[in-house]
Amino acid sequence: MSQRLVKVGLVQSAVGPDKAQNLAKTVRLVEDAAARGARIVCLQELFASEYFCQREDAELFDLAEPLSGPTTEAMAAVAKARGVSIVVPLFERRAAGVYHNSLVVVSPKGDIAGHYRKMHIPDDPLFYEKYYFTPGDLGFMTIPTPEAAVGPLICWDQWYPEAARMTAMSGAEMLVYPTAIGWHPKEKAEYGASQLSAWQTMQRAHAIANGVFVVAVNRVGHEGPADGGLDFWGHSFVADPFGVVLAEAGEGEETLVVECDLGRIEEVRRNWPFFRDRRIDAYGGVTSRFLDRTGR
Amino acid sequence: MSQRLVKVGLVQSAVGPDKAQNLAKTVRLVEDAAARGARIVCLQELFASEYFCQREDAELFDLAEPLSGPTTEAMAAVAKARGVSIVVPLFERRAAGVYHNSLVVVSPKGDIAGHYRKMHIPDDPLFYEKYYFTPGDLGFMTIPTPEAAVGPLICWDQWYPEAARMTAMSGAEMLVYPTAIGWHPKEKAEYGASQLSAWQTMQRAHAIANGVFVVAVNRVGHEGPADGGLDFWGHSFVADPFGVVLAEAGEGEETLVVECDLGRIEEVRRNWPFFRDRRIDAYGGVTSRFLDRTGR
Repeated sequence: MSQRLVKVGLVQSAVGPDKAQNLAKTVRLVEDAAARGARIVCLQELFASEYFCQREDAELFDLAEPLSGPTTEAMAAVAKARGVSIVVPLFERRAAGVYHNSLVVVSPKGDIAGHYRKMHIPDDPLFYEKYYFTPGDLGFMTIPTPEAAVGPLICWDQWYPEAARMTAMSGAEMLVYPTAIGWHPKEKAEYGASQLSAWQTMQRAHAIANGVFVVAVNRVGHEGPADGGLDFWGHSFVADPFGVVLAEAGEGEETLVVECDLGRIEEVRRNWPFFRDRRIDAYGGVTSRFLDRTGR
Repeated sequence: MSQRLVKVGLVQSAVGPDKAQNLAKTVRLVEDAAARGARIVCLQELFASEYFCQREDAELFDLAEPLSGPTTEAMAAVAKARGVSIVVPLFERRAAGVYHNSLVVVSPKGDIAGHYRKMHIPDDPLFYEKYYFTPGDLGFMTIPTPEAAVGPLICWDQWYPEAARMTAMSGAEMLVYPTAIGWHPKEKAEYGASQLSAWQTMQRAHAIANGVFVVAVNRVGHEGPADGGLDFWGHSFVADPFGVVLAEAGEGEETLVVECDLGRIEEVRRNWPFFRDRRIDAYGGVTSRFLDRTGR
């Protein structure tokens, strides 16, 4: 099998209250990644702002912007200047009262190559996303870039095998998961390690089940009140199509540039031919809410 | 959340050429597990025979037996004598020319509580299962036992998130995977660790995605020619509903007896409510063979 090498950049950073500063800082980090050879750069979920979903406040919808707003414009400019593709998460204002947790992929020409709206919306203490985000209506997809077919997904999507499966089946070679996940400081000692392990295990399994690369990019730092808030756990990583972790960041700011051989996809799928044997005649129940045939 | 404790037994053993001896040995191992407190005992895939699928030979269909044949009878007797439930894999002769890789669950009364036929059939060098086994036609299910709702699946099924999902959605509290997986001795040094890791990662992910226990039971020992064959890797394990490995065997014969608190299922699902947010309106593509919308 022939090699097809591409370097992917993962920008894991801490975020402050000033959106313009966050944007300017991220532009510099993308430039760094490009200088280190990255051809596709992935940013973390809602990278331009602090994770505002820690509280429900109608004023915070002011953070939303149109698809071709300042965030996309700034990233399109650096994409064009450096000749790279960038996965750009943003808080999308679609219409009054209709807001999405979205991403665009900007091309090396500075165009929007594709647009995805987060399909699975969480709602948990300090992650009040159902208040802000209308569930996505664009479905699962693959977005072409010059170097790789990118399968866009966002954070909570990462817990759903159906999302990974359909994205891979649409032709993606690389699932990208911009993320904002962290510990509740009070839970960290007891549950921190198992939560981080579950998060990584789930995504490595998507790589294995589908024979694709997985790129997860998470933020770092504490946000919110000193006696509460969230500790974003970082640990951005890349897994190969057999779930092997090629590179993993720590819990501080860090930009990974990771070489991926897309030729591995066909090699792995030949040796572990899971797609061949799917029982599509028997999977109809997946579209049910629950099957309610418990024996108990 | 209230505790609901049950001890599960996993019988990981080496298998010889004599079927009657294998059966008698396994009866003793089940008795041992029951004596140690196991209420549900899981056997490895096709435990009564060597893994005959290493070659294609029509004579080997002689190993198949009716659902209520000697294997089921022997295990029903020990189930009744010891008051336990047993997950009993067998090579099922359904009709001339129709054979399945199956399991039954025998109840503490000695009855057949349920019957599952392996849905996903592999075919790889030394795993020539498509020659022997007609794909299952009973779908995914839950089988009741006095202590837990058991979700039966077999070996290659473990690579399919759809199978785990539908089984959990049918009410299973515990996915059981009787297995026969091993290394090609020549590949072991280079790929052994990553293959074992992928196998465990995939199944831990089923536990996480679905908030269920996972019980995987694999055989051990070398079978086949000394200069080839398969080294079955053991490593039977139990994962809790957040993917934490509660116990794991080594690569030799070993019977695990593992206490599971089924109350953990509701606790984990309340804190990580993945079922709540499934996008059943958008999962129809899962029943397609491939989606062919690649951007490349």
